[in-house]
Order: sequence, then C-alpha cells, then structure tokens
Amino acid sequence: MVRVGMVDRWLAERVQRLVAPVAVRLELWDGTSPFSASDPPVGDLVVRDRRTLLGLAVNPDLWFGETYAAGRLAIRGAAEPVVEALSRLSGPAATWRARLGALLAPPNSLRDARRNVYHYDLGNDFYQLWLDPDLVYTCAYYADPAMSLAQAQRAKLDLVCRKLRLRTGDTVVEAGCGWGALALHMARHYGVTVKAFNVSREQLGFARARAAREGLSGQVEFIDDDYRNVRGQYDVFVSVGMLEHVGLRHFHSLSDVLHRTVRRQGGRGLLHFIGRDVPIPLNAWIRRRVFPGAYPPTLAEVTSRVLGPAGMSVVDVENLRLHYARTLEHWSAGFANAADQIKSTYGEAFFRTWELYLAGAQAAFATGWMQLFQIVFTPRESPPPAWTRAELLQQGEVVR
Amino acid sequence: MVRVGMVDRWLAERVQRLVAPVAVRLELWDGTSPFSASDPPVGDLVVRDRRTLLGLAVNPDLWFGETYAAGRLAIRGAAEPVVEALSRLSGPAATWRARLGALLAPPNSLRDARRNVYHYDLGNDFYQLWLDPDLVYTCAYYADPAMSLAQAQRAKLDLVCRKLRLRTGDTVVEAGCGWGALALHMARHYGVTVKAFNVSREQLGFARARAAREGLSGQVEFIDDDYRNVRGQYDVFVSVGMLEHVGLRHFHSLSDVLHRTVRRQGGRGLLHFIGRDVPIPLNAWIRRRVFPGAYPPTLAEVTSRVLGPAGMSVVDVENLRLHYARTLEHWSAGFANAADQIKSTYGEAFFRTWELYLAGAQAAFATGWMQLFQIVFTPRESPPPAWTRAELLQQGEVVR
Repeated sequence: MVRVGMVDRWLAERVQRLVAPVAVRLELWDGTSPFSASDPPVGDLVVRDRRTLLGLAVNPDLWFGETYAAGRLAIRGAAEPVVEALSRLSGPAATWRARLGALLAPPNSLRDARRNVYHYDLGNDFYQLWLDPDLVYTCAYYADPAMSLAQAQRAKLDLVCRKLRLRTGDTVVEAGCGWGALALHMARHYGVTVKAFNVSREQLGFARARAAREGLSGQVEFIDDDYRNVRGQYDVFVSVGMLEHVGLRHFHSLSDVLHRTVRRQGGRGLLHFIGRDVPIPLNAWIRRRVFPGAYPPTLAEVTSRVLGPAGMSVVDVENLRLHYARTLEHWSAGFANAADQIKSTYGEAFFRTWELYLAGAQAAFATGWMQLFQIVFTPRESPPPAWTRAELLQQGEVVR
Repeated sequence: MVRVGMVDRWLAERVQRLVAPVAVRLELWDGTSPFSASDPPVGDLVVRDRRTLLGLAVNPDLWFGETYAAGRLAIRGAAEPVVEALSRLSGPAATWRARLGALLAPPNSLRDARRNVYHYDLGNDFYQLWLDPDLVYTCAYYADPAMSLAQAQRAKLDLVCRKLRLRTGDTVVEAGCGWGALALHMARHYGVTVKAFNVSREQLGFARARAAREGLSGQVEFIDDDYRNVRGQYDVFVSVGMLEHVGLRHFHSLSDVLHRTVRRQGGRGLLHFIGRDVPIPLNAWIRRRVFPGAYPPTLAEVTSRVLGPAGMSVVDVENLRLHYARTLEHWSAGFANAADQIKSTYGEAFFRTWELYLAGAQAAFATGWMQLFQIVFTPRESPPPAWTRAELLQQGEVVR
C-alpha cells in the first residue's frame, strides 16, 4: 500500500471541503479521514489509491464516475443518500469547466448522430433485462403512484396521445422513436398513421418486427433516417426523449423541421425532454460514458430557439421530474436484479458505470437538479388541442 | 372637402398595399378607393381626411388608434372582422419601429409605476359598468364554454388557488391585487392569510371596504406599496396580470423579490400574464393611450430572467389565450351596453379608444398574436404542488 503523504493529505482536505457541505466523509486508503464535523456523515467515500484522489481533486465531475466504475472509489453504506447528497454539489463549481468542455466537443453532424446512439445499440437483450416489456427508455407517468413500471410507461404513452388529442386518420411524424412503443400505441389506440424516424439499427429492427407481429405495419412506417431529413406535411409532430441529443447548435435545424412539417390549421406537436432551470452542460462523465453529444436544454432555449422561430405557440408545459425519479428507481431495481447476468456479459466496470449513472440521474431528478418537460405546441394561428385540460383527462383511454 | 390629389392617391395606394393581404378596403374622403382585388373585402376603412391618411402611411401602429378614436377613421360594416384582419398585420413591419420606441420609453421607476396605473384609477364606477361584479380585470377561465363572465371569473380565481394547492394557514403574498377579488377568494375559500400589494389608490379603497364588509379584514391586508418593496417570507407568491406592467428592465427586481420571499421547502408561486411567442413590444398606440410602460414578455424572457435567477423551477405552464378572447368578447358587450353612459361621462373619443382597444385585444388573442400564460413554479428543491394534474382538478371547489 502506498503511504499517505503530505501532498495526499493536502489534496484530501481539498476534496473533503468540496463534499463537506452535504456531510459526505472522505476516507483514504490507509483508513484515515480529513472529515471533522461532529454530526455523523450521510455516508463514506472510500478512496482506494492516489490516482483516484488526484482525479477527484482536479476534475471531480469526470473522475468520480471513472474511478467508481473502475472500483477505485467505493461508497460505504447505502449508495443512494450519498449519490443524492453529491448531486446537490454538481453546481456552480463545475459549470465553467463543463461549459468549456461542451464548446470543445464535436458537433452532432449527421454522422456523429449515428455514432452517438451507440448507447442504444448496446443490444436489445441488455435493455430487456431491466426496462419494461415495451422497452420504453424515457420518463414514465405514474398516474397512480402505486403503478408498476410497465403500467406507468403505458400511462405515459397514453398521456402523450391525449395531450395531442389524436384523431382517427391523423398523420403523425415521430422524431426518435426508440423501440417503437409510442408509434405502435398511437396507431393501435388512436387510428393514426405514423412515420417514425430513428438512427439506431438495433431499435429499428425490434420495432419493425413488433409492428409486423402485431399487424400494424400498414399504419406505422419505421424509417432509418435522421430527424433533419423529415419531409412532407403532417398533422402532428412528436418527439419523446430525443431533444436532449440534438444539441443547442442544431436547434435551428429542428426549428426548420417543425416549420416545414407542422404548418396546417389544426396542426400540433409535443416535445418531451430532459431539461434544466438554468443553462448548464451535462455532467462530463455522463457525456463521456453514456450520452455523447447530449445537452439538457432550458425552457428558454427551447422556446426561443426551436418553437418561436418555427412560428409555434406554447400551449402547455408539464414538469414530470418526480415521475422520472420514480422511473429511475424502478430501472435501478431491475438493473440490480439482473446484476449477475450483466456483470458476466458486460464486465464489472460496465455494471458499475450504469449503476452509478442510474443512481445519479435519479438523484438529479429527485433534487430538482434536472427537469423533465413535456411541451405541447401549435402553429401560431391554430387553436390549442383542447379548450380546457379537463377534456384531456376525460378523453380516450386512461390506463390504470 | 379637400380634393384628393396625386400625393393622396400615392399614399392611399401605399396604405392599401399594407392592408390588402387581409382583404381590407381603403376608402378616401371622396368615396374613391385604391382597392382592386376581385374578391369582396372583409370590410372598409373609411379615411375622412388627409391628416389621417398621412398618419396611417407613416406610423399605422400608432395612428390607426389615434384617428379612430378621434372619429377621423371609421370602420364600415361589422368592426370585428376588420380589426381581427388588421391584427394579423401588426407583425414584422412594425417590429423595429416599436422596439426602438420601447427603448426610448422611460423606465418604470417606482414613481412611474404609480403614474402608469392611472388607467386603473379612472374610477371604480367606470369599471363597474362593464366588468363582472367582483371587478376582475384579467383573463377569465371558462371551465365550461357556456359560462357567464361572472362565473368564468370565479372559476379563474379558483383555478389559480387549486394550481397553487392552497392549504389552511398558508401565508400568501400577492403582487398587484386589483380590486382584491383573488385575495378575498383565497382567504374565504382556502383559509389562508394574504398580504396584497397594489399602487392604485382607487382599487385599494374598494378592496379594503369589501374586505371589511365581508369580515375578511383579519385575514387579508391590502398594502399601498410597490411589489419591489415586498419583504418577509411566505409560502405562496401569486401575481395575476401584473408582470405585463413590470417591463424587461425590472425583471431582475421581480426575480430578487421571488428569491427572498419564497424560499421555503414547500414554497410555490404563480405568474399569470399576457405574453408573446417571440419578443415584440406592445402596440405603440396601446402603450400611449391605455397601458404606459407595458410589455408582454415571452416565456423565455420570464423563465431566463425572472424564475431561473431566483432559483425557481417551472412546474406547469398553461396558455389560456382563447379564454382571453372570450373574456374580451364579454367585456366588449358590456362596454357597448353602457355606451350612452360612458360617452356622456367620458366623451366620444374616450369611448372609441376603449372600444378599439377591447376589439383589438380580442383579435390579438383570437389570432395567436398574443398569449395568456399561467406559470406555476417552486423553489428548485421543493416538490411540485401536486403529483399529477388530476389531483388539482379534483381538489377544492370547482365553480360551475
């Protein structure tokens, strides 16, 4: 074991000061700790070597995740309260460095966009281990807090349909369709026809097979292409969990797409995305390991750069952040249940990366560090889809 | 009668080109018209003299209202379709001039703010002629489209209370309380205590008398002061129809007020205001004659300059623009019913100013040129007032 020297202690005190406001105790590889508060800490961060300590001191946003995944940093006791406490820190200190990192990051060109979805191409088998049976990898809607994950995902699909007030015969374009659950739900329950775009081959294969199996191939076309190549006119535009991957520099492209595809009287659309209260880039480690090119925008960025220039009016915004915290809790539980299989197939570091990403995301939504927005919009002169919200709640099938 | 000369014809053609896209026909004081389309026009604008023609050519945004009020410009046939058609025009052409005008306008200092509410000090008698019995001078909520104005105003008061999930004993601060209807409704039906701020003496006098008459003086304190002087901590912040009068340059002051007054765990607030999809100053004539210093902000301006810096999260946004169009329709009808009395007390020009302002505002909301936003927010780490919207609809008294 490397001896803890003077420089190590100086670095450790620096890192301890960083996490002290949320009562997390740092412990070094020799069992000593610079923690001095009299109240008991919410948990311990065990630093197993000097390299880890250095990483935490220099760029904690990145190295917390890296060293945790490598097993060189451990959480003693229950991980949840520690991760939640730490998520309250990720603020101002990290902002400028992260912003710089975002500026230097490569733009999401059409080719990058394909490469950046590698996450979704990990293999459908992987996601089937811990997502709901319909493979919906976005925030669920717990109409009743006691719902299961599968029920809440179906409730979310239906919530989106009702907010959009889908009518038989409507034409819908979906940008970023995942494994196709929403497109198929809209077609089956609301009698619409859907063109669903995606650049993940694995997902498209699954979605097409499911459409064929369920006799919906005539109503839903799954298209292997980028949202920027959407052409034609539609009654409805919908995008669930894709805006986070667009990146600020391409908001004008999405705006152009909306402007040219949803112009009709009676046209309407919905954007469902992870967002922020204030503009702050995504955590550096998450961007490196889980979501390259991702950026959770503010409402101001989306309304002023996407919707406004497209000639769209905001009809309705709902923030479902606590529903996302609950969703992530369910995902984490499923992930933990499948731990042995995931570790043996993908390795220990992969498991720990995802474990921490899911826990961190849950903490971020629980503490208000991240938001989940659904925005309903219409072309400026079109009426809103409903006169009051009460109509939307009474309409259609409320899945319980 | 002044003869229509060559210059007049040239100016008339210029103005006609401006209104031709919405099929409005210009007619000069000699009965001639430069209108040439083969389809019948939606209505006629009768220009009674050269000065009016010049005003319309040089700055239609301002002079349309000025000359209409003076009776030097008339609308032949039904006024509504003509005003609605014209409101579709007030766009890009006017934008830069209007923006310049807004820059040159004096700031809303504390003293200006008092002077700018002169509109509200016209006399309670005036408003009692055409508002609902509770004197609510903001957008109503027609939970049922067949509601009367009075019912819809009470439904709006209750909608605001339910969105805020008021609980017995909550402390509420209201910025800009009008004639006190909301403060009194909150106190009576939800058992909260309210400090209600206003800088209009006429309104405060009415509100205090009503509170005393209804035995609510112990629960509601009406305070003759500016929103910028709000001090202390509250559970709830609410402001209905005041943000339009704040002005962009003072958004940071409002942000400071929110930051220092609604910080508690469980704190929450609501802003109800006239807004826009894109940043465009208010019509120059309306600013001169009806609302000095007013500016209808975009969602982006409010979220990035008021709520974000105050540490607030947006929980919910609802756009009620069609409810405002309906409200204005009811106000216009009441106004027309009281025409004789208003004209004899305030004069013909005053009557025509208000007639046009009400018709123009109705058209602006009907066509999507203006929006009516209600934003619910909480301090970042506080939970939203409700788990789902369904709870809000079931809670409390739904006034029908």
